Amino acid sequence: MLRIGIIGVSGYTGVELARILANHPNAVLTLATSRQHEGRLLSEVYPNLKGCIDITCTNPDQDTLARQADFFFTAVPHKTAMTIVPPLLEGGKKVVDLSADYRIHDVAIYEQWYQKHTSSELIGEAVYGLPELYRDKIKTARLVANPGCYPTSVTLGLAPLLRNKIIDPATIIIDSKSGTSGAGRSANLATLYCEVADGFRAYKVGGTHRHIPEMEQELSVLAGDSVTISFTPHLLPVSRGILSTIYAKNISGAGESEIKSIYKDAYMNETFVRVCPSGNYPATQHVRGSNFCDIGFSLDTRTGRVIILAAIDNIGKGAAGQAIQNMNLMNGFDERAGLLGAPFFP
Amino acid sequence: MLRIGIIGVSGYTGVELARILANHPNAVLTLATSRQHEGRLLSEVYPNLKGCIDITCTNPDQDTLARQADFFFTAVPHKTAMTIVPPLLEGGKKVVDLSADYRIHDVAIYEQWYQKHTSSELIGEAVYGLPELYRDKIKTARLVANPGCYPTSVTLGLAPLLRNKIIDPATIIIDSKSGTSGAGRSANLATLYCEVADGFRAYKVGGTHRHIPEMEQELSVLAGDSVTISFTPHLLPVSRGILSTIYAKNISGAGESEIKSIYKDAYMNETFVRVCPSGNYPATQHVRGSNFCDIGFSLDTRTGRVIILAAIDNIGKGAAGQAIQNMNLMNGFDERAGLLGAPFFP
Amino acid sequence: MLRIGIIGVSGYTGVELARILANHPNAVLTLATSRQHEGRLLSEVYPNLKGCIDITCTNPDQDTLARQADFFFTAVPHKTAMTIVPPLLEGGKKVVDLSADYRIHDVAIYEQWYQKHTSSELIGEAVYGLPELYRDKIKTARLVANPGCYPTSVTLGLAPLLRNKIIDPATIIIDSKSGTSGAGRSANLATLYCEVADGFRAYKVGGTHRHIPEMEQELSVLAGDSVTISFTPHLLPVSRGILSTIYAKNISGAGESEIKSIYKDAYMNETFVRVCPSGNYPATQHVRGSNFCDIGFSLDTRTGRVIILAAIDNIGKGAAGQAIQNMNLMNGFDERAGLLGAPFFP
Amino acid sequence: MLRIGIIGVSGYTGVELARILANHPNAVLTLATSRQHEGRLLSEVYPNLKGCIDITCTNPDQDTLARQADFFFTAVPHKTAMTIVPPLLEGGKKVVDLSADYRIHDVAIYEQWYQKHTSSELIGEAVYGLPELYRDKIKTARLVANPGCYPTSVTLGLAPLLRNKIIDPATIIIDSKSGTSGAGRSANLATLYCEVADGFRAYKVGGTHRHIPEMEQELSVLAGDSVTISFTPHLLPVSRGILSTIYAKNISGAGESEIKSIYKDAYMNETFVRVCPSGNYPATQHVRGSNFCDIGFSLDTRTGRVIILAAIDNIGKGAAGQAIQNMNLMNGFDERAGLLGAPFFP
Repeated sequence: MLRIGIIGVSGYTGVELARILANHPNAVLTLATSRQHEGRLLSEVYPNLKGCIDITCTNPDQDTLARQADFFFTAVPHKTAMTIVPPLLEGGKKVVDLSADYRIHDVAIYEQWYQKHTSSELIGEAVYGLPELYRDKIKTARLVANPGCYPTSVTLGLAPLLRNKIIDPATIIIDSKSGTSGAGRSANLATLYCEVADGFRAYKVGGTHRHIPEMEQELSVLAGDSVTISFTPHLLPVSRGILSTIYAKNISGAGESEIKSIYKDAYMNETFVRVCPSGNYPATQHVRGSNFCDIGFSLDTRTGRVIILAAIDNIGKGAAGQAIQNMNLMNGFDERAGLLGAPFFP
Repeated sequence: MLRIGIIGVSGYTGVELARILANHPNAVLTLATSRQHEGRLLSEVYPNLKGCIDITCTNPDQDTLARQADFFFTAVPHKTAMTIVPPLLEGGKKVVDLSADYRIHDVAIYEQWYQKHTSSELIGEAVYGLPELYRDKIKTARLVANPGCYPTSVTLGLAPLLRNKIIDPATIIIDSKSGTSGAGRSANLATLYCEVADGFRAYKVGGTHRHIPEMEQELSVLAGDSVTISFTPHLLPVSRGILSTIYAKNISGAGESEIKSIYKDAYMNETFVRVCPSGNYPATQHVRGSNFCDIGFSLDTRTGRVIILAAIDNIGKGAAGQAIQNMNLMNGFDERAGLLGAPFFP
Repeated sequence: MLRIGIIGVSGYTGVELARILANHPNAVLTLATSRQHEGRLLSEVYPNLKGCIDITCTNPDQDTLARQADFFFTAVPHKTAMTIVPPLLEGGKKVVDLSADYRIHDVAIYEQWYQKHTSSELIGEAVYGLPELYRDKIKTARLVANPGCYPTSVTLGLAPLLRNKIIDPATIIIDSKSGTSGAGRSANLATLYCEVADGFRAYKVGGTHRHIPEMEQELSVLAGDSVTISFTPHLLPVSRGILSTIYAKNISGAGESEIKSIYKDAYMNETFVRVCPSGNYPATQHVRGSNFCDIGFSLDTRTGRVIILAAIDNIGKGAAGQAIQNMNLMNGFDERAGLLGAPFFP
Repeated sequence: MLRIGIIGVSGYTGVELARILANHPNAVLTLATSRQHEGRLLSEVYPNLKGCIDITCTNPDQDTLARQADFFFTAVPHKTAMTIVPPLLEGGKKVVDLSADYRIHDVAIYEQWYQKHTSSELIGEAVYGLPELYRDKIKTARLVANPGCYPTSVTLGLAPLLRNKIIDPATIIIDSKSGTSGAGRSANLATLYCEVADGFRAYKVGGTHRHIPEMEQELSVLAGDSVTISFTPHLLPVSRGILSTIYAKNISGAGESEIKSIYKDAYMNETFVRVCPSGNYPATQHVRGSNFCDIGFSLDTRTGRVIILAAIDNIGKGAAGQAIQNMNLMNGFDERAGLLGAPFFP
């Protein structure tokens, strides 16, 4: 059994990693760090895990930490990750980093949207952890940068169309809606129940969300040209789930059946991408608690636009699920190990 | 006191009309029809109204009906409205029709999206009941076609920019999200609690929603040219509220302050349109239970697009509230009568 | 117009007071204090109030404060109220205090459940502000202690049965469920959306909630004897609403129709208490946004128990609505002024 | 692999059975019947199952049906079960029946609360499927009557205290709250999103819910004497989850630590019953999607009552999860097979 350490277990992503690992056939959680909850049972912090996982939160120094696991998930905020990841790699460990710190290949762009990068020497080595695009590189990577939640839905939704030059990249507009768990588990007035429930709003309007450079990087690779997007995130009164509604001009003349074939071909061997039957569209409640990305599309012949819909669980395929998928690949496990539980509905 | 009849009181729009009328200074509800609930107290069907309004649901023939009120709201499905409205007008009554039957000026377009129109002779006379655009015509109308919920949010959001030629009408993309009350109060598997809660999905994807011709009609008038839009509706796990996120190319070179001025000028005298302070955006929970439409925008300088956000309560300004506003205008009352209750939050 | 000051406007009770006052025929809000939001428009803090109320949050010293209004609502935590209320009364003002500080008549009991009381000289003067029980005293009071939310539902639910000796006070068990707004508007992990949504739990189990002595005080008065209760509060995934389910042994032999008469007689002249028709029971969604208390009951002949159900909006009749009702009485206004808006549903 | 048939797959219990079976190590779903969805892929009816389970809904005659599986879950309404179960048993199959038809041992009581029983000859043979109480009998049973959701939470919560004569059975009051999935997946006005969301209500008040005789049967066995209970069910605005709050007089003089020991002893070897640490109480969101029952209690020394709280997922341990647990026992599998996924939170 591979010994796993989660650095930063107290957030919603941390606990979802622990939940998946509790039933993983090849891995066992041996380290769960949390400054805030040091000394407490993880199942006290998250009573759902009672009887499922028996581990105490610790806050060891870097040396101790490295001895207690062979493989690490860093589920800490960006900037913090930069200081934790390098010594782990030096100690011979493999890491999936769930922060944004190693996702952006161009340091200048990273520093423009985030802050100064203090371990930029690792950026070149880090592999962007979207298995459906970079499976082979992930298999041999020491450091995988786990994608952002919005970028996962958007990149999987657009990849087949961009690769096949179906749409005009200059016309891409992305309207995304995320569940509240994406905002994390910290005491915050804006995500109190009464502020979110029975309501809906946009945030970071006008091209200011930090996932934009990440999406533009990946979409540009797929398009073979520099892509600039409009992206507007919204906050849904649900705990889990992202639905991205994506608009772009059809410049190919392709009809519905051709586009359907393109999606089918692209994802026929992908366990975790499900292309919806014609006339059906994804719903976040159908991917809840899973590592699936559901994709549907429609051709609006009145306007010549394609509308693509992609749904994920933001802490599943959008974070912890995908991280486990990457871990599986990096260690030669069955890529699906631990991830085959069906989404729960209702 | 003006005697009011609600034809079709049993839906969510019907009960919201009754709720507002319960405190209206100039009008009194004297007739509430419901085939399904004939003979029951309205406050039995909707216990929230107990002690607020004392009326029994009836199902009279057309003659009796006409005698029991002076002013009518027809809150029935399209097609049914066509058979109820004409005799009311012949009997000298004024009507606000909340169905789609008299919204579309071009019969051919109506028949293409709905079905055969059997009282098309009234279409020319019917006034589109968006007071912020057609106040003067509404004041003298016998028949007002109350706008659809999505079109209300979209038209108010875009009117100032189209009139001032700020945006390219060919680039308009509308991503709307509606609360579940918009689906009505009929037993329907798709709107069961367990199907909607903790979830999110699109519907009528690909330019097929029947509000499209209504929006295109109004946006075309504002643009002074024929407008075709992309429109995608989504179902929110909230009871009340619509947020429309609208994208369009800025072709004017106007900056943020100029656009802000355009909105301020357009709505400075409008009680029910609130322009958000810079950097603030509408939220459905801030218009809940009211007749307000909140509008915000942002200029995405990276892409040259304007993003407009408009929020309403779909059964307030999107239906019953606006219908009362129209009734006020048609009868010389203070336009705001009965509608000044502040939105409730949380 | 009576000039009103709200001390502590930033909580959910504060904003609900402001919302009601925005349409009150006899009162106008002239002072709204908030340390946290000093200098900000109230409608910036609570955008639902935009266009409804135009006031800036201030944080004046006690002297200035007293000059800016004639009547005060103190919507501050207990203990803080004790320091604010006495100088207001000395300055000749009338006060409705929404904290717990003046609700308990017996200082020893107050100090056992809360902390040391520093203005106990006012306790004797303060009137418990449940108008259905103490209307006449409230009319002439300088200081009214606005009841707690749970006690309001419980006391109104039990009063007729205790007065008429229908039930055995020693057998009273109260199982209450409250919406999350009752926990206030402060950043708190336990009331984050993701912690509350799609879930349900009890808290303060085992007779430890501070509303217990308040309920026992009032129930003892009604029973004419000392009453001890079992009380368990629960947290509902709703914003507004309390439902109390109350169990007690029927010791009177009274049947359903007799008990029905007792409730009808007790509340026939009470605008804000609605007794449900037989076979119907209260629902929080039917009192939402209002000052109503809905009451229903059933006789379980198998066990000889009466089950009483009482529903209120916890920030309506459970806080701000009742406070306005008290203000109306204290100033000779129509008791219902500002409070006649029908509950909104859905 | 054991071949499994689900009779009545279209309800929420049916789909949950299918979801669990999709990952069961010893069983495979070979038959899924639905009159309504005959000929459709189950993953079309429930898109969450796409890629997880590949089966088409059928509606075969009894003979065909019996050939297509070795073990059956009957997830049909009571009364229907009576006609389906007998021929299955005659054909040599084993059955877990999820209806109420074989839960009540006394035909007269069954017929008093339900309707005429047409296969009462099987009642004596049927084993009540609560493994924590009847494990040995279940292992050898042909027909197991899967307990109701409310009774599961209540019986597990009370069993240790009744067996140890800690509480007075005559004083038991049960206040239960259930998620909306308990009402099933049929188009029904009362369970529409807008009727349930942001609200809370009781139903079947006054000792009329059909789970009462089932609970009384089991509690009487445990108490060694006839028990009559007060039971009030409520409808929660959540999809999954039941919390039962149970009150009873402590007649034993036992203190908190003694009662704690009794619970610990009772459930120390039970995988699916988790006793909460002192001062902690169950929450439905911590058992969501699982087969766990979480139990906590408090001693109210002021009133001499014990308050017991028990939480389950109503379609997990309250229906499908427990049914799988019974199937495991009846077939000699590991009792926990397929049921070890940790509850998901948030």
